Amino acid sequence: MKIVVIMNALKKYHKDMIDEAAKKAGAEVFYFDKESDVPKEHMDADIVYGQGINMAKTCENLKWLCASFAGVDNLVKPDSFKNPECILTNSAGAYGVSIAEHIIALSLMMMRRITEFYAETLNGQWLPPRAQRSLKDSRITVLGTGDIGTTFVHRVKGFEPKSIIGVSRSGVKKDPLYDEVYKVEDLDKVLPNTDLLVMSLPSTPETIGILSRERIALLPETAYVVNVGRGTAIDEEALADALDHGMIAGAALDVFSTEPLPKDNRLWHTKNLLITPHVAGNLTLEHTVTRNVEMFVEDLDNYVNKRPMAHLVNKKIGY
Amino acid sequence: MKIVVIMNALKKYHKDMIDEAAKKAGAEVFYFDKESDVPKEHMDADIVYGQGINMAKTCENLKWLCASFAGVDNLVKPDSFKNPECILTNSAGAYGVSIAEHIIALSLMMMRRITEFYAETLNGQWLPPRAQRSLKDSRITVLGTGDIGTTFVHRVKGFEPKSIIGVSRSGVKKDPLYDEVYKVEDLDKVLPNTDLLVMSLPSTPETIGILSRERIALLPETAYVVNVGRGTAIDEEALADALDHGMIAGAALDVFSTEPLPKDNRLWHTKNLLITPHVAGNLTLEHTVTRNVEMFVEDLDNYVNKRPMAHLVNKKIGY
Repeated sequence: MKIVVIMNALKKYHKDMIDEAAKKAGAEVFYFDKESDVPKEHMDADIVYGQGINMAKTCENLKWLCASFAGVDNLVKPDSFKNPECILTNSAGAYGVSIAEHIIALSLMMMRRITEFYAETLNGQWLPPRAQRSLKDSRITVLGTGDIGTTFVHRVKGFEPKSIIGVSRSGVKKDPLYDEVYKVEDLDKVLPNTDLLVMSLPSTPETIGILSRERIALLPETAYVVNVGRGTAIDEEALADALDHGMIAGAALDVFSTEPLPKDNRLWHTKNLLITPHVAGNLTLEHTVTRNVEMFVEDLDNYVNKRPMAHLVNKKIGY
Repeated sequence: MKIVVIMNALKKYHKDMIDEAAKKAGAEVFYFDKESDVPKEHMDADIVYGQGINMAKTCENLKWLCASFAGVDNLVKPDSFKNPECILTNSAGAYGVSIAEHIIALSLMMMRRITEFYAETLNGQWLPPRAQRSLKDSRITVLGTGDIGTTFVHRVKGFEPKSIIGVSRSGVKKDPLYDEVYKVEDLDKVLPNTDLLVMSLPSTPETIGILSRERIALLPETAYVVNVGRGTAIDEEALADALDHGMIAGAALDVFSTEPLPKDNRLWHTKNLLITPHVAGNLTLEHTVTRNVEMFVEDLDNYVNKRPMAHLVNKKIGY
């Protein structure tokens, strides 16, 4: 059995973890930093862990692709796999800590107007205090209650928000820290009572454009929007209009429908918009890499012992 | 009995709260936005709530000054009060929420390098991800375990830090969320094991220069420093040297020994230093104002009924 690992963020101890699990599984492991480095002779890999979108498309022998990322929208299209029987797992669950910290940082930067203060002090300006807002007593809506949303909830709870409402496909309350969890069909009822809308949705046919112009109009003037899922979830033109006209208080976007955000995109100049260049969840935090490897090792054991995979993607629903 | 209130942040319902308490106390209330607005005829006030540093110096009849701020270093000097018997209370306890949120925002901005990403996106640059750090598994040292430090601890706990060590004058552990609380005498033992040093100390003879050049040298290269107490607590030249030479990872300062920070101060150009213009704790958050008024009303009741004041300043120790 041959395992090809394509990741450039692994430290020595991460490779040791993989090597040990591979040995136990009776498999050989080959490491590469990027997909284009993998030589032809390894195109017969049984398992790929890490990047592997091109290998999935071309390798007939591939039986399992473990994506080192969470958003697999490019791997659930009809022609994503040469071998239609190939199993796909992802690494949703590894990025919660990193992305949850990013959400809280961006939310507080907006609410406390640190965006303004910091931009001013970068220019050597010392300007007077001005009205600020707080996570305390805020009504928080979490659209997408998976690992990211729920890891965020566990962190934001200590800030004493007034309410934490989850909105998900199923509407099932899987964690007691949510006050309520509603189905996506009820989103329109929740939006008018939202001070902070946190979006952490995968890109699926159901989530594309979910924050439409009509729904943005349902948010109160006091609302902040943070999106760390996929850029396609928001009607970006409508959001820019709402921000430029002060219909909502602010927004922070880490993801965009086109990335990198094109030079001539109006979002660069939209009022009260905080941009970060898709850096909420990468393999830039050691914790994320370690958790990622742990999840692969766990599923390698499942794979060898023919148990159900813990991190299996449902190709039909897309996550 | 005459009460003069000097605050410009009060909303109608805050005045209603004060008026009701004053009525119960049989007192008349007069409101002003700033101290220079108070006419001569009110210099016979029995009680001043809010700003009042000059009234304290000149009003013989003043029996109680309730400062609307927490740092009373300008009110515990020998000639601060014309009437030496005048009671001084402060509003420590009202600012914890605001300042704790500021600490977490600044810490995450540094650890996640949002300072860099944001400065870049302000210039229209979309640059690649880079190594980040996390509150998770960090060793946090809280120098000053009063309201601010402890409110911060209650918020940061959810981020799963490795440890939270308090350091205070008494060394008494007043809250179970601290793993340990040490006396200031033991600070040198704690600093080498600190990834994030949070300073929220009042300005007293004991705290001036407490983070000296020698102590900065005890911090590991991975350490971040956040100061939201008083600027005098840090040897600013030594901190700038440490930052410019990469001896610590970064610092965020909201307070400075001279404010506004002078135009020619080297801190404006120090590496990995995040500056905000003393905005962590002002009356800019509605919650802070409400809590402030509640504390005054509580002590007005104590004052009238000759019970001990809840928010009394010990003029000898300075807080």
